[in-house]
Amino acid sequence: MNENSHSIYRAKFRVYYEDTDAGGVVYHANYLNFFERVRTDWLRSCGIVQSRLAAQHDLKFAIHSMHIEYISPARLDDLITVSCQPVTFRNASMDIAQSMHVDERLLARAQVRAVCIRASDFKPVKFPHHLKQEIMR
Amino acid sequence: MNENSHSIYRAKFRVYYEDTDAGGVVYHANYLNFFERVRTDWLRSCGIVQSRLAAQHDLKFAIHSMHIEYISPARLDDLITVSCQPVTFRNASMDIAQSMHVDERLLARAQVRAVCIRASDFKPVKFPHHLKQEIMR
Amino acid sequence: MNENSHSIYRAKFRVYYEDTDAGGVVYHANYLNFFERVRTDWLRSCGIVQSRLAAQHDLKFAIHSMHIEYISPARLDDLITVSCQPVTFRNASMDIAQSMHVDERLLARAQVRAVCIRASDFKPVKFPHHLKQEIMR
Amino acid sequence: MNENSHSIYRAKFRVYYEDTDAGGVVYHANYLNFFERVRTDWLRSCGIVQSRLAAQHDLKFAIHSMHIEYISPARLDDLITVSCQPVTFRNASMDIAQSMHVDERLLARAQVRAVCIRASDFKPVKFPHHLKQEIMR
Repeated sequence: MNENSHSIYRAKFRVYYEDTDAGGVVYHANYLNFFERVRTDWLRSCGIVQSRLAAQHDLKFAIHSMHIEYISPARLDDLITVSCQPVTFRNASMDIAQSMHVDERLLARAQVRAVCIRASDFKPVKFPHHLKQEIMR
Repeated sequence: MNENSHSIYRAKFRVYYEDTDAGGVVYHANYLNFFERVRTDWLRSCGIVQSRLAAQHDLKFAIHSMHIEYISPARLDDLITVSCQPVTFRNASMDIAQSMHVDERLLARAQVRAVCIRASDFKPVKFPHHLKQEIMR
Repeated sequence: MNENSHSIYRAKFRVYYEDTDAGGVVYHANYLNFFERVRTDWLRSCGIVQSRLAAQHDLKFAIHSMHIEYISPARLDDLITVSCQPVTFRNASMDIAQSMHVDERLLARAQVRAVCIRASDFKPVKFPHHLKQEIMR
Repeated sequence: MNENSHSIYRAKFRVYYEDTDAGGVVYHANYLNFFERVRTDWLRSCGIVQSRLAAQHDLKFAIHSMHIEYISPARLDDLITVSCQPVTFRNASMDIAQSMHVDERLLARAQVRAVCIRASDFKPVKFPHHLKQEIMR
């Protein structure tokens, strides 16, 4: 599979008070919320709605591991652009590269490994064919 | 002042995993986040950006009190419509009526009293004239 | 039922960065987290563990409505004392009075109405006898 | 400096509804809250209170980067033990190893790089001597 064939998905989000901390900037754990939102929106753009995936297929994506670098602080009222690019698919996991910008300034970068699990018992499963098709088309 | 002259401001937000809890629905405290987001967006639509309000005018809105009713649960992936309508202005406080819907279904309702405080020491102050003008026009 | 017979349950919590916002104080929605924590701890002290209540009895407490007053801001590193006092029991709801202090300073006050619902379909149910017994003894 | 000389700091935290998501387990971003809480408690045990550090010394710790592995889900009502062990000090950064357990079961592991910055302008600074002394004794 040609990794370069995967295009980048982007979405914009506003930074609200809830996202910030007493340091005056976005609280470091909350960057993960924005990265998760854009993964969810990207899946939706592929036709995958996570609540239905759990209810109808007993499947769920879980984060296996993540490496995150904080480069420049995001601030209240910033309109940030968050990206999501699948870079590698395996039988039971996928790697996703993500970034967060405000205008041209890079705020953070993450490499995320997600796995497919059964929603009912959290056992890892191979990506079902239909899921792979939807994500990779 | 004619209270009916104040129009309703509405914005739509997606419910993400971060908003939900193990009960399978939006965590009750997180409804307040959505209410806050739409107040922020409404102020922005009036030309008031809160980060600038604090930096340039040493002013901040603070929540004085809130009554909230939870009517029907919001769920993962719901696209919710949140409203914000200023109903009463006083010298140093304003009352705001808010609601949250998914399609036609009412999820929650809130009455919020906000006050104007100095950002530096949290002392209550009267709404400055320019602020009142921007909000009420 | 004599309302005065219900004693006050208290617990202490530290304010961390996650609880604060760019205003330098605890974010207003997060006060509800602390109120919820102490309700959970109070129920646990009555022998009621909510995860087991859902799994074994298909029951869940849901917040019906809440009135909250913000009196003085809680700040990073504060060690806050949060209280919880059931004041009225009905067949299908209970009212709880809550407060938050740092030392002798009152930070916030809330009146909370909680209802009992089925965890599986969120339908309201009367408090089962065993639950009432555990809460009221 | 002998890295083995740094002892492990541990604290226990309860998992509440606020920490969980609709998947029924602790939301992945919220693991970072628990890691942050124990770093804060560890610093406090060294005599460093972050709100005072900012107010009196214009200093703040910021997260530079983090690698986190999610091994087993934490659940509502779990009493988790979170650890924090400084492993490397440099002039302007320190590496911290962290883990999260419930009983003997490992839930998550993180390697965190923290830097010292000026609270007022977020410029990186060398760890002041007094800070290093307090942390390393």
